[in-house]
Amino acid sequence: MEMSSKLLERAVAEISQLPGIGKRTALRLALHLLKQPEEQTQELATALRKMREEIQFCRQCHNISDIEVCGICSNNLRDKSIICVVEDVRDVMAIENTGLFRGIYHVLGGKISPIDGVGPSQLNITTLVEKVRSGGVKELIFALSSTMEGDTTNFYIYRQIKDYNVITSAIARGISVGDELEFADEVTLGRSILHRVPFENSLKGL
Amino acid sequence: MEMSSKLLERAVAEISQLPGIGKRTALRLALHLLKQPEEQTQELATALRKMREEIQFCRQCHNISDIEVCGICSNNLRDKSIICVVEDVRDVMAIENTGLFRGIYHVLGGKISPIDGVGPSQLNITTLVEKVRSGGVKELIFALSSTMEGDTTNFYIYRQIKDYNVITSAIARGISVGDELEFADEVTLGRSILHRVPFENSLKGL
Repeated sequence: MEMSSKLLERAVAEISQLPGIGKRTALRLALHLLKQPEEQTQELATALRKMREEIQFCRQCHNISDIEVCGICSNNLRDKSIICVVEDVRDVMAIENTGLFRGIYHVLGGKISPIDGVGPSQLNITTLVEKVRSGGVKELIFALSSTMEGDTTNFYIYRQIKDYNVITSAIARGISVGDELEFADEVTLGRSILHRVPFENSLKGL
Repeated sequence: MEMSSKLLERAVAEISQLPGIGKRTALRLALHLLKQPEEQTQELATALRKMREEIQFCRQCHNISDIEVCGICSNNLRDKSIICVVEDVRDVMAIENTGLFRGIYHVLGGKISPIDGVGPSQLNITTLVEKVRSGGVKELIFALSSTMEGDTTNFYIYRQIKDYNVITSAIARGISVGDELEFADEVTLGRSILHRVPFENSLKGL
């Protein structure tokens, strides 16, 4: 698109590099910023720059953090012997929001996916295996996506730690709370029958 | 959403102030930037800041410009006696992309819309009337949205300039090129019959 301003053109080009944002949306966002007070753009630019420059990843669990060891890992009330293995930072937030997990996390940074060119070496798997090897870990909870890539990653890690004295578990897969059976897919429904739990246990967390 | 990093939280809060971008999308964009090389964020932040600080609006037509008078107004090959009245900068780009208009523009900056609290005084109408009053304008082409607000704005301007010696026209409204009649709405179809043009003329621009 031909634009009458190189400044606008450059801003649009930069914004449209973000995932899911095309040229048209980028132009709409840029023109919106031009209509707002100058401070809004200043603050947006500063927040982005500061975030990218100063943010750290927790030395222990690879979660995003402002300090060297994140608030969860340095919290003495959390049970360090239970580690929940997740794909990325958003999963930590999602589980933290439930308020039902008192252990710590290990963020892999993705899952094994040959199609996307992601192999085990690009993920934070070595540090996880090292944690298990050095003792003190009682249970490893696999909380990865319920996809083939997630299952592959789970199994890859499982093979490396199965000889150590550690319990491994996976989050329950079944019918979502609030869902009606008739709309559930048959694989999920079938599994939810196979992996049924004692009725008293099923009341936990409600 | 509880986040483990205040820096991330602030960036997400700023991004989600953009129109059409919620907290979740903002988080996805922020995490994307964290995965990309630091330069990308730097360049995005710089482009936004420079655009907001340095961009100007053309003194004559109110189009976005890097200089005091935009490239269209300062181009001697453009016919200054034909002014196309548009709502905003995007409309200028859209018409320029057709390559079929050789006059100049006048950007109103919106349309009269009492519901959104936009009255004539917030728009660049005075400068347009002044241009017509000072002479040298042969034709004013109204190219506003085909909505009630667009029509109201057209009529408001028309009343102010109708006593001057200037031709006023409105862009043609009818069936889009490539559209099939059976899917056209009846108001458009009806108008396109009322405002039919001589067949030889209908071949122009094809």
